[in-house]
Amino acid sequence: MAIVLGPNQYGKAEVRLVRVARDTAVHDIRDLTVSTALRGDFRDAHTTGDQHQVLPTDTQKNTVFALAKQHGVGAIEQFALMLADHFIDACTAASGARVEIVEQPWSRIPVAGAGHDHAFYRGGGGLRNTVVNVDGSGTERRAHVVSGVEDLVVLKTTGSEFRGFQRDRYTTLDDTDDRILATSLVARWRYESATGPDDLDWDDCYAAITTQLMERFAEEHSFALQQTLAAMGAAVLRSRPEVAEIKFSAPNKHHFAVDLEPFGLTNANEVFYAADRPYGLIETSVLRDDASDPGRAWHAIPGFC
Amino acid sequence: MAIVLGPNQYGKAEVRLVRVARDTAVHDIRDLTVSTALRGDFRDAHTTGDQHQVLPTDTQKNTVFALAKQHGVGAIEQFALMLADHFIDACTAASGARVEIVEQPWSRIPVAGAGHDHAFYRGGGGLRNTVVNVDGSGTERRAHVVSGVEDLVVLKTTGSEFRGFQRDRYTTLDDTDDRILATSLVARWRYESATGPDDLDWDDCYAAITTQLMERFAEEHSFALQQTLAAMGAAVLRSRPEVAEIKFSAPNKHHFAVDLEPFGLTNANEVFYAADRPYGLIETSVLRDDASDPGRAWHAIPGFC
Amino acid sequence: MAIVLGPNQYGKAEVRLVRVARDTAVHDIRDLTVSTALRGDFRDAHTTGDQHQVLPTDTQKNTVFALAKQHGVGAIEQFALMLADHFIDACTAASGARVEIVEQPWSRIPVAGAGHDHAFYRGGGGLRNTVVNVDGSGTERRAHVVSGVEDLVVLKTTGSEFRGFQRDRYTTLDDTDDRILATSLVARWRYESATGPDDLDWDDCYAAITTQLMERFAEEHSFALQQTLAAMGAAVLRSRPEVAEIKFSAPNKHHFAVDLEPFGLTNANEVFYAADRPYGLIETSVLRDDASDPGRAWHAIPGFC
Amino acid sequence: MAIVLGPNQYGKAEVRLVRVARDTAVHDIRDLTVSTALRGDFRDAHTTGDQHQVLPTDTQKNTVFALAKQHGVGAIEQFALMLADHFIDACTAASGARVEIVEQPWSRIPVAGAGHDHAFYRGGGGLRNTVVNVDGSGTERRAHVVSGVEDLVVLKTTGSEFRGFQRDRYTTLDDTDDRILATSLVARWRYESATGPDDLDWDDCYAAITTQLMERFAEEHSFALQQTLAAMGAAVLRSRPEVAEIKFSAPNKHHFAVDLEPFGLTNANEVFYAADRPYGLIETSVLRDDASDPGRAWHAIPGFC
Repeated sequence: MAIVLGPNQYGKAEVRLVRVARDTAVHDIRDLTVSTALRGDFRDAHTTGDQHQVLPTDTQKNTVFALAKQHGVGAIEQFALMLADHFIDACTAASGARVEIVEQPWSRIPVAGAGHDHAFYRGGGGLRNTVVNVDGSGTERRAHVVSGVEDLVVLKTTGSEFRGFQRDRYTTLDDTDDRILATSLVARWRYESATGPDDLDWDDCYAAITTQLMERFAEEHSFALQQTLAAMGAAVLRSRPEVAEIKFSAPNKHHFAVDLEPFGLTNANEVFYAADRPYGLIETSVLRDDASDPGRAWHAIPGFC
Repeated sequence: MAIVLGPNQYGKAEVRLVRVARDTAVHDIRDLTVSTALRGDFRDAHTTGDQHQVLPTDTQKNTVFALAKQHGVGAIEQFALMLADHFIDACTAASGARVEIVEQPWSRIPVAGAGHDHAFYRGGGGLRNTVVNVDGSGTERRAHVVSGVEDLVVLKTTGSEFRGFQRDRYTTLDDTDDRILATSLVARWRYESATGPDDLDWDDCYAAITTQLMERFAEEHSFALQQTLAAMGAAVLRSRPEVAEIKFSAPNKHHFAVDLEPFGLTNANEVFYAADRPYGLIETSVLRDDASDPGRAWHAIPGFC
Repeated sequence: MAIVLGPNQYGKAEVRLVRVARDTAVHDIRDLTVSTALRGDFRDAHTTGDQHQVLPTDTQKNTVFALAKQHGVGAIEQFALMLADHFIDACTAASGARVEIVEQPWSRIPVAGAGHDHAFYRGGGGLRNTVVNVDGSGTERRAHVVSGVEDLVVLKTTGSEFRGFQRDRYTTLDDTDDRILATSLVARWRYESATGPDDLDWDDCYAAITTQLMERFAEEHSFALQQTLAAMGAAVLRSRPEVAEIKFSAPNKHHFAVDLEPFGLTNANEVFYAADRPYGLIETSVLRDDASDPGRAWHAIPGFC
Repeated sequence: MAIVLGPNQYGKAEVRLVRVARDTAVHDIRDLTVSTALRGDFRDAHTTGDQHQVLPTDTQKNTVFALAKQHGVGAIEQFALMLADHFIDACTAASGARVEIVEQPWSRIPVAGAGHDHAFYRGGGGLRNTVVNVDGSGTERRAHVVSGVEDLVVLKTTGSEFRGFQRDRYTTLDDTDDRILATSLVARWRYESATGPDDLDWDDCYAAITTQLMERFAEEHSFALQQTLAAMGAAVLRSRPEVAEIKFSAPNKHHFAVDLEPFGLTNANEVFYAADRPYGLIETSVLRDDASDPGRAWHAIPGFC
């Protein structure tokens, strides 16, 4: 028996980059949190501590800023793919790179009915993100793009049931045919065969997919959060051929109807207590049966997915 | 010398109330975090532990739910004033009550161009809140309403300078005539003579004041965050006669232009590092010179105010 | 009616200073989060944006680091008083200064039965803090020191009752003579006449006071959290003549005995659900009847205190 | 092409269980956050919304409380294995279960030199956790136990270098032979062949492993965080035959020596700025070359591991 080095990677996490495009009086802003990680043959760093194969994480941070200047920052998927390719090229020992980006959204402050040229406020509606993995370069290059949205908090006040479930000796829950359904949705989808920075109109894809997720959540009558999520995912796959698979991690944010009977009042699903913990947690996924091999696309992403 | 009991209060904090109005197929939702506190003669509870004067915090929680059912929930100021008056009446020993409410905003999910009847998403743009204090009842009753917004994150990419400041031996900062100005604004304003639940159109006031704060932030050329805040506050006072005073706590969320010279690149305020800590913190206030006595309106509110 | 400038202050918040004393092979470490704020005549900064009276917050940050080098860092009260006096002297327009420090605790890693010379781990047991206010200098100088502990999480599994309270139509809570009592204590005490950096052995005071708070929490039979807090505070005042007053903000972290009857089980206070929200919140204070005027010692400190 | 259901699981997350053992006057307390998840054939729930195969998450929560009463709570690994086996048996459609537990630590309040019988304070030193996966039952049963510690914050003020690394055009970092090394360690280790509730003295294992991790961190001269982590892991594997592999996710919490030269001061590694973001992130693992197949032991655990 010997003790051996297992999988490893290293990089710089949470580089807070704000890129302003100011070529005209109408400024644009991209506000990103970028995390980079390299993998490859970094054995010496782990055994003797010899660092000659290690491109410092400080350099990775500098590179994020420098490339943002040189190339600008468009869609986060595009920027992430460019960074990953750069690092595989720049770091001799690196065989692969993982770049994760979360985008903080900004909207123009409305003034006199129009968006201001250079003043913005932080909007809501979920955080867009991407996790890009690239292995190798040239003809050996293989890339995966998993994009998603998190903190997309949605709620419906009716159109949700939960009944007919399995019962055992520890079951006290009653059937209900009308409840609040709410979740803070995490959705991530893998793009099929979209591995170059300009393969897709990433911004358009994101807008279309999140719109569809929200619309299906609103429209689909829910018998269970599982069925709602599966329907949302299937709708995305049906309408977006560039998506190979989609995964969800969805807390069931319980809203309990308060028992007002002790006070001589009835509560026809009007007054709720919004609970913090515990919460149901539903993790599910739908995919095409001919989807390509995901490789390590989903590695290191939290959740069952 | 004797050891004596000082100021005290008690209550239930962070009751998570969701109130759905569903009289028609078009549902409305109010999502509140309510904190109540009573003050008065609660000496026995502190000395012997005798609780006969104490209306339990559990009862206060129940009351929030019950009154939400009985009276519905309109503007948070209205609901808070009703709760405060109720508690002073219900708890024999209470001479005053403080009710704080934060509202979580929801927007209708757009489906086919229209807002959905009963499906919502959590929006952005700051959290609305109020702190209501009532002392006494009947002709002795005195009430104060301080309302506000927090987490209103705004940023401008130009139109902000900082120069001509005092220098000493520890000063290294350079003058700048163009920088990013960003803050996560906390603003709170006290309503003058508006102490009854229906004295004002609270929702309209909130919308108008936050709109004006954002517009002034956008439009005002900034020589310092202090001057920007003072201008924002003065604009509110000039246009809203119902506001007696307004206070701000504004972190200066630093965005540092990254030095790209080591890489042979120039950075004309295009690439920034968004720092977490430390941050400047500017606290200021403007008021009418004939504003009424605030009494305890600002007690227990964090910040310089 | 005119619109006038109200109270204001500005400074640098949350400077993360780590000071290592390494004069010998046995290193010491102080890990502080320092926030400074100046008040005085800063009218021009608010009106015209003229900054000539403003010592930049960046300079305040530099000063924290420079003085830490020059004078070392002992007790946080000592360091805060030195900083406050420095800023009043350095900034021409400043008439007063407020310095708040939170200390992150480190303990030596035990190796072979002894504490390591230069390796540490982050310990628990609450965060020590201080809020120092100084106005003026020379013979006009007036200083206040409020020190405290936060995040001191304590729990007792028995020795706590809650019964005999006032009941109204919204009361459903039952009397109990045995419950879990738990809180995440925030305690702050004002030192009487201790306004110079070396007036007291601050480290010794902190250790003695927090020890007494915990011991009294453990030993005192509780009829209500109010009575427990009052007893804890009185014990501190009785034994520590240097303390003028002490204030508490104590969430009643509810632990509800789970109803196991549906499963044919009895629960003799053995199985609890620890709730997040809502929670009771008890704020109280005890003081000497001959305590000095607190001035602005308690300004800007959150809570009823 | 068809759209098909992919991997899925569901359960109750973050059940806050506090179990008191009070058979004698000396009480014991276990304070756990328990998350359960079931996997198997839950197709109907996703397609038609038919719930007959679904044991509700509410029932899972009830079960956690009921089993805590019936069997008591010892080591978290023991309790998690018991829960997992229970759920596979109770839920007809479940083929596997995942149970994750985090333990909040409590220490006895010292009174007069001895630990109090029933009063406790929340200690520090990292959070113990476990992730247990069980598939099948009877002779087909297969179980994996991955235990760990998180939030174990350690720091050394010297004995750490970083030099000789790869340089490219974006490298500005200087070599250093003396720096602060600090991390908030996440370590997780998989137990080999320990799949029954009573296979190991889990509490003893945890104490021994965390002690060794801290000692090696303190004692090992560091040329890089990678080498420090590999040495820590190897030491655990050498001394604990029950451990098959160990993985680390370690943020390099940067402490930058402040440049005091502008103030005419030298900084011989005495004054540091503790940065929040970005941070280096080192993920690595060591294992026995004859370690058993981990199966799904590491699924759903965040990080590269």
